[in-house]
Amino acid sequence: MTVQVAQRRRQGWTGELWEAIEPTHLRILEHPFITGLTTGELAPDAFLRFLAQDTYYVNEYARSLAALSSTAPTMALTRSLLEHASGAVAAESTLHAELVAMLGAPSDLLARVEPSPTAAAYVDFVTARVHTGSFFSGLAAVLPCMWVYAEVGVHLVAHGSSHPAYQRWIDNYAGSGYLDEVDRILDDVDALAQVVGAQERARAAEIALTATRYEWMFWDAAYAGEQWPALP
Amino acid sequence: MTVQVAQRRRQGWTGELWEAIEPTHLRILEHPFITGLTTGELAPDAFLRFLAQDTYYVNEYARSLAALSSTAPTMALTRSLLEHASGAVAAESTLHAELVAMLGAPSDLLARVEPSPTAAAYVDFVTARVHTGSFFSGLAAVLPCMWVYAEVGVHLVAHGSSHPAYQRWIDNYAGSGYLDEVDRILDDVDALAQVVGAQERARAAEIALTATRYEWMFWDAAYAGEQWPALP
Amino acid sequence: MTVQVAQRRRQGWTGELWEAIEPTHLRILEHPFITGLTTGELAPDAFLRFLAQDTYYVNEYARSLAALSSTAPTMALTRSLLEHASGAVAAESTLHAELVAMLGAPSDLLARVEPSPTAAAYVDFVTARVHTGSFFSGLAAVLPCMWVYAEVGVHLVAHGSSHPAYQRWIDNYAGSGYLDEVDRILDDVDALAQVVGAQERARAAEIALTATRYEWMFWDAAYAGEQWPALP
Amino acid sequence: MTVQVAQRRRQGWTGELWEAIEPTHLRILEHPFITGLTTGELAPDAFLRFLAQDTYYVNEYARSLAALSSTAPTMALTRSLLEHASGAVAAESTLHAELVAMLGAPSDLLARVEPSPTAAAYVDFVTARVHTGSFFSGLAAVLPCMWVYAEVGVHLVAHGSSHPAYQRWIDNYAGSGYLDEVDRILDDVDALAQVVGAQERARAAEIALTATRYEWMFWDAAYAGEQWPALP
Repeated sequence: MTVQVAQRRRQGWTGELWEAIEPTHLRILEHPFITGLTTGELAPDAFLRFLAQDTYYVNEYARSLAALSSTAPTMALTRSLLEHASGAVAAESTLHAELVAMLGAPSDLLARVEPSPTAAAYVDFVTARVHTGSFFSGLAAVLPCMWVYAEVGVHLVAHGSSHPAYQRWIDNYAGSGYLDEVDRILDDVDALAQVVGAQERARAAEIALTATRYEWMFWDAAYAGEQWPALP
Repeated sequence: MTVQVAQRRRQGWTGELWEAIEPTHLRILEHPFITGLTTGELAPDAFLRFLAQDTYYVNEYARSLAALSSTAPTMALTRSLLEHASGAVAAESTLHAELVAMLGAPSDLLARVEPSPTAAAYVDFVTARVHTGSFFSGLAAVLPCMWVYAEVGVHLVAHGSSHPAYQRWIDNYAGSGYLDEVDRILDDVDALAQVVGAQERARAAEIALTATRYEWMFWDAAYAGEQWPALP
Repeated sequence: MTVQVAQRRRQGWTGELWEAIEPTHLRILEHPFITGLTTGELAPDAFLRFLAQDTYYVNEYARSLAALSSTAPTMALTRSLLEHASGAVAAESTLHAELVAMLGAPSDLLARVEPSPTAAAYVDFVTARVHTGSFFSGLAAVLPCMWVYAEVGVHLVAHGSSHPAYQRWIDNYAGSGYLDEVDRILDDVDALAQVVGAQERARAAEIALTATRYEWMFWDAAYAGEQWPALP
Repeated sequence: MTVQVAQRRRQGWTGELWEAIEPTHLRILEHPFITGLTTGELAPDAFLRFLAQDTYYVNEYARSLAALSSTAPTMALTRSLLEHASGAVAAESTLHAELVAMLGAPSDLLARVEPSPTAAAYVDFVTARVHTGSFFSGLAAVLPCMWVYAEVGVHLVAHGSSHPAYQRWIDNYAGSGYLDEVDRILDDVDALAQVVGAQERARAAEIALTATRYEWMFWDAAYAGEQWPALP
């Protein structure tokens, strides 16, 4: 399968950033989790592991967005991050439960998830950046999740899936205005990139690339059923 | 005028807390700012000073609610604080602009407000508590604003105002579901009060009383046109 | 009395910042608290009020320095802020107790201080800036305390006091290496000022000036015996 | 080799906590990194990898201790955490450089370390707990590092090493007063454990066990030369 490259090229700092992110993004599109979604051959257990880990992730991600919104340099950014945080929690909670039911898994699967090593590391990476660095570098930590997810969505909507539960999940991406919301946040990032110093931009780019690496690792950990080392 | 005492008595920790808050709450109801609102004799300039300081306060208050939501012990509390934060910003921004117009003040009055000493101190008090203490004591810092405001609203709706702009402001309280929202948060506070230690409850009560004192001082500062000391 | 202007002029951003700070600094040197210290005519009660409020202030100030050290961009800055925090707490705790004894006040005077409105507002201002803004603007919030204090020290050491307890307090300034320590931190500030954006420098300058205003207000509040409004 | 079990049993909450930690602690003592240290058979490259990762870890750990000190419930705890933070940074920086030289590695080995996945995850775990949870649960996150490290030290001092560089590292443990310092902090933890609620103790125990698991993983990652996945 030929993976589709994101078409809507951006200018400015985020345009440069995407060039650095894109090679990893392409590796995500080629990952057997994503190709298995579109062919329908992905094992439902792997998808359920993803849903469980994603439930954990999205809840904590919403908290990081809320924390960021509390120190945003303008009220407009505070508002847009608050909305994004609320949207993340709301979207996740109903859709995930529906998919668990469609796949015949126990309804309490998502109630108390133990995060995998990668999910824990990614969540703590984002949380630590949001609470200890500058606002701009905190924003860089949450950016790849929303951006790569949006671009993966464009790819999945274009390809579809033969599996009804996977298609239901893909449908959630289409026509949701999510891409426009991400674009507006990227515009804000570009505006901020012009007022922060060069060191801060460099640090933010480094953080965004680490977060993008965690994006790939997150799909891979769900696919492989990653475990903690067996210790007492 | 006989001030009306809040009728809906609560049980539990917040019931005890209100007993400590109420004497100051009654002093707020007797303050010439509030009595002037209902008689219509309050000087429009004092009301405009209040609107300006309140715009500053509510924006920063929403940020504190967002920060609290990011460390709430349950996702239910994270969600309800996120909603409260979004609601605070939205309600404030449209209503305040309308009132400025009704009172014939310049439309940019609220664009860049210099906080009064009391507004600055109250905002920083809440911000500092939310970012440095336990979640429970942070919650105690934001509680009096929403609770006393709701009870002041009950009082004002019952008394009304002969001044159309003041009545418009009072109308905003009526039938808004705001009281129910505050009650749900108070229920959450009571549930948390049962699992935290006695020292933490004592510290939280102390914080809530300090915040209530700042509530009175906030009305008083707007009324009196409080200024910073004249320094170079 | 002719107040002495700080002689050691700095270059760079902190040089410009001092030009903005200096007029308020001169007002501090002219304040009856400071002139009364050197003439010996300051009422011991005013000095004891200052010691009590300063005990509260310095403890919380050390916490803000510790918080700043935890997010410093380099380990060198982390180390120097950690040392400054430790030094602040240590210096304060022994000297203050000795002065209380010299002035014949009860030994538990400093054990549980209720902060004055100004001490509370200043502490919360610093705490809120350190926990919600950039590292650079947090540094700007703690800077005036150490800098103005050091310059007030130069002035007081030069003038001395006829009152033995006040002279004991002034002696603490002399030959302590404190000025060099502050100079090293100011060098770090100037280095950072070159890598942050212009908006961040402007915001930091605004914060430093507000903190300087609080410095004057802090002396004035101790002098005047500032009280909270009498509420239930 | 028979591993030695910690002899100085504690009472109170930390006594219970150690029972939960100890099985993992024993697995650390049996790990080929630790047994290789005492037999001298540990590959110098593995030891150098450990030193590099430990340099990264200790610097960030000191920052977490500083952050904790800034929100400690008493000034005594603020002071002891500040000292522990200063001590951690100072001890690490000189000793590590000396060991690098003894092992003939390049002197800039520790200048700019890329953290391994496990070192990054552990550091971010501690940082995130310290900045988002209660003070007590933040303390639980930093505790295993100092406690397990102290107990590993007791074990290593008792067994020694035939390798001079490893013995030099082990010597650093002996007679340093480090154990007493840890004991004093554990006393503070026990005092706090009596005033926080049962839920908070349970959460703190969970966090301490996760941190202990990361302790084992940290030694194991240095031993195995853990790498990030090879992505663009």
